[in-house]
Amino acid sequence: MPSDDIKNIYRQLVRKLEERSRLGGVMGVMHWDQEVIMPQGAAESRAMQMAALAGVLHEKSVDPCLGGLINKLINSEPDEFTGVEWCTIREAKREFDLETKIPKELVQEIAELGSRGHQVWAKAREEDRFEDFAPILERFIILKSKWAEHAFPEMEPYDANLDIYERGMTMDRLSPIFENLKNELIPLIRSIKNSDMKPDDSFLEGDFPIDKQEALGNSISRDMGFNFDKGRMDVSVHPFCGGGHPTDVRITTRYRTENFIESLFAVIHETGHGLYEQGRMADSLDLPVSEPLTMAVHESQSLFWERMIAQGKSFSIRYLDKFKEVFPDFLKGVSADSLFMAINVCRPSFIRVEADELTYPVHIILRYEIEKSLFDGTLKVEDLPDAWNDKMEEYLGLRPSTNTLGVLQDVHWSGGAFGYFPSYTLGAMYACQFYNKMIVDIKDIPERIEQGDLACIKTWLNENIHCQGRLYSPDQLAEKVTGQILEPDIFINYLKTKYNAIYGLN
Amino acid sequence: MPSDDIKNIYRQLVRKLEERSRLGGVMGVMHWDQEVIMPQGAAESRAMQMAALAGVLHEKSVDPCLGGLINKLINSEPDEFTGVEWCTIREAKREFDLETKIPKELVQEIAELGSRGHQVWAKAREEDRFEDFAPILERFIILKSKWAEHAFPEMEPYDANLDIYERGMTMDRLSPIFENLKNELIPLIRSIKNSDMKPDDSFLEGDFPIDKQEALGNSISRDMGFNFDKGRMDVSVHPFCGGGHPTDVRITTRYRTENFIESLFAVIHETGHGLYEQGRMADSLDLPVSEPLTMAVHESQSLFWERMIAQGKSFSIRYLDKFKEVFPDFLKGVSADSLFMAINVCRPSFIRVEADELTYPVHIILRYEIEKSLFDGTLKVEDLPDAWNDKMEEYLGLRPSTNTLGVLQDVHWSGGAFGYFPSYTLGAMYACQFYNKMIVDIKDIPERIEQGDLACIKTWLNENIHCQGRLYSPDQLAEKVTGQILEPDIFINYLKTKYNAIYGLN
Repeated sequence: MPSDDIKNIYRQLVRKLEERSRLGGVMGVMHWDQEVIMPQGAAESRAMQMAALAGVLHEKSVDPCLGGLINKLINSEPDEFTGVEWCTIREAKREFDLETKIPKELVQEIAELGSRGHQVWAKAREEDRFEDFAPILERFIILKSKWAEHAFPEMEPYDANLDIYERGMTMDRLSPIFENLKNELIPLIRSIKNSDMKPDDSFLEGDFPIDKQEALGNSISRDMGFNFDKGRMDVSVHPFCGGGHPTDVRITTRYRTENFIESLFAVIHETGHGLYEQGRMADSLDLPVSEPLTMAVHESQSLFWERMIAQGKSFSIRYLDKFKEVFPDFLKGVSADSLFMAINVCRPSFIRVEADELTYPVHIILRYEIEKSLFDGTLKVEDLPDAWNDKMEEYLGLRPSTNTLGVLQDVHWSGGAFGYFPSYTLGAMYACQFYNKMIVDIKDIPERIEQGDLACIKTWLNENIHCQGRLYSPDQLAEKVTGQILEPDIFINYLKTKYNAIYGLN
Repeated sequence: MPSDDIKNIYRQLVRKLEERSRLGGVMGVMHWDQEVIMPQGAAESRAMQMAALAGVLHEKSVDPCLGGLINKLINSEPDEFTGVEWCTIREAKREFDLETKIPKELVQEIAELGSRGHQVWAKAREEDRFEDFAPILERFIILKSKWAEHAFPEMEPYDANLDIYERGMTMDRLSPIFENLKNELIPLIRSIKNSDMKPDDSFLEGDFPIDKQEALGNSISRDMGFNFDKGRMDVSVHPFCGGGHPTDVRITTRYRTENFIESLFAVIHETGHGLYEQGRMADSLDLPVSEPLTMAVHESQSLFWERMIAQGKSFSIRYLDKFKEVFPDFLKGVSADSLFMAINVCRPSFIRVEADELTYPVHIILRYEIEKSLFDGTLKVEDLPDAWNDKMEEYLGLRPSTNTLGVLQDVHWSGGAFGYFPSYTLGAMYACQFYNKMIVDIKDIPERIEQGDLACIKTWLNENIHCQGRLYSPDQLAEKVTGQILEPDIFINYLKTKYNAIYGLN
């Protein structure tokens, strides 16, 4: 085909992808509105509006014209397009294939089960009735296995589920990573539990007015470089980062007057996500090439700021006085060292979302092992609560007294999101690996943080991660940025060094 | 066709109309978000998102399947469908015809000119440069005349433009109505101007904290029966009533600390619109049969509350103490009578949106006369500023010193909305006519208002107007509710009686 024609086809593809992206942005605003703004009485009408919009998005995604354009482009000569253009074409193909390979009835059954599943799960969790939720879970494993056969017939079903959140990741690779991590963390957590060192974190409790918490979160988010001209910060039941566009990024948090660290760290975490969105490559904002790479890489950006920066000592040194200024009745006589220790207390607990840096990966590994055995048939849904509780006892020394505190705690499975959990810990690993490179690139990072210069961190992340979009695979990105593919030992060494020091071990 | 088949076709039509209505609701939320929430930096991406959604809505509106269903239904036997069903079919046909009769290029040119026109107008108004806006206006009159030829070829072009806001209204009917109104109002306004009676309204100025204004507006909106479980109240540059659904109605106002009456009356006005939306027939919320009837009838609902209720003496009697309680530093020694007089001061001014009850219709008549002569060619765009200023001087005794204070003041023409202005005054006439009937139905309305019972008013409007949707034409509705079609003399008599009394005339 003459080059002019092929360029014209590419432009048509771009128009179609931009249209879908813009309608997806509308969905993003509607979702944010639902969580933050919408009056309660609109729940039913909103569900129907979002279903109608989802239907339109689906129509656009499976549009045969779109498939035709992709097919005409995918076998072009390599030098016909730039790297950004090729990535656009590849991403369009991956998405189109995923959307069109699944039979419509299966898509609908999964959507319906997800909608019903969420209600059943919420009630079952409230009433501690796992048996009510079990049939949903059983059906979901069947449906998601079927889905996998259509989507990625060459893969194991659970690998296919992993792949949509962290493309390229497989059980063959992940199991030894998690096994190794588990073998290192469990003894470390046990040593901490048995240690006499009990850092005081009682001074983090108090009475912190919400307007002051909000102003504090806002100001630290600004320090991190969040652009409030292209974003907002609001309140929702569960903190999240949403919005409609890289120029319209909306983070949320929630406030409890007894504790300001929780809301503040939620702000920092969500700002990390938000900076990724705001930092996307400027000239392809409405194309998949600029989209965040994977769930794990997205999580690496929030955890970078939350764990690697805000839970680091320099951050405590920088912000202690600010905290004291905002809340003059509290933190009296507290040192930066004590603050650092208090926000890094390791304390095994039942609930993942409340877990500390060290026990969090154990929660994830537990879920990964369970999901894997549910998909390979070695664990039956009816045996799930026992399996969960046995593992919790084995790994963290705690046995949940109810399923609400155990297997029913997470929302993910109620929507059929299997394979999602590993992203959290893979994200922590990437964050750590990126951080280790950043402190080589910018040698005086600790001093800069102590002086309040967080901008250099944002710039480093912008240039190394955010603007890369989907040009590389996660491993390629890690290699490009740090010189090596994902290397879990960096994370393990970081955790051991940090927590051995805090708890005076070895 | 067998009745079962025809019912099935009707159900298919309903599904298509519901889908379009739901996507329209999404647009409503996006529009509200843009005005109230959206960060400034998202303006460009939002414009493209809304254009994408508008494109989808257009696709759905001109879907040939939709036309096929309508054609199969429109010639059914009268007894095949209920009144609600027939109305649904008729409304679907009107909308489909309007959407499909206009050539695509004309639709696009109008949309583009509207988008550009708004920017040009805003700048021209700011810089007082009518000559910059004139070419837009000239082009719009050509395009809207062409549009009229396609949309309603049997009508005069300006009648077609009137019809989309107030269906059935024509120049033949409206001109004598407005001529008569003008002949009554101008001498009355002149008498007031020459009268020695100058009611004191200086006590309405002061320093009114915004949080207190907000709480007051919120509480009066609640008194009126606005359901905050299915609605919200927020702040925007221009007050409006929007949202995504009758279960998600969002009113806005704006605050100035110097004056609380303006924001409060905006709340009352928009609540009147909001109650119409919330009061729609409950079993057809996503179908056109339940939609508000016309712009004038919608405006009748806001003006009913603003003019007929809140500017009435009983309202001053009821709320004076509340105002004094909320703003204890102000309104000292003011009586209900003085408050009533102060909020009914008649004072000719240049700007329509700031006009009082008596001079407002004059602003409308001026615009109507000008639009009419622009469309019939007796007035050229270049002569518009002089024509405007001459009329202002003749009717209200004021000559604008700039076009910013004159012909450039309104946003409507920049988007091509000709034929819209008369709705405001027709709405005032309907409001007055409805009110006159309500006080016959509920004899002790003044006493009820004085006791704070506004609920009976909302119920009367719910039953007589809101739940009627589009079952009747405006005249049929007026006749059903009041026993006669639109009768402008009721409005004229009301104004003369009220303002003669306030100003001690005759």
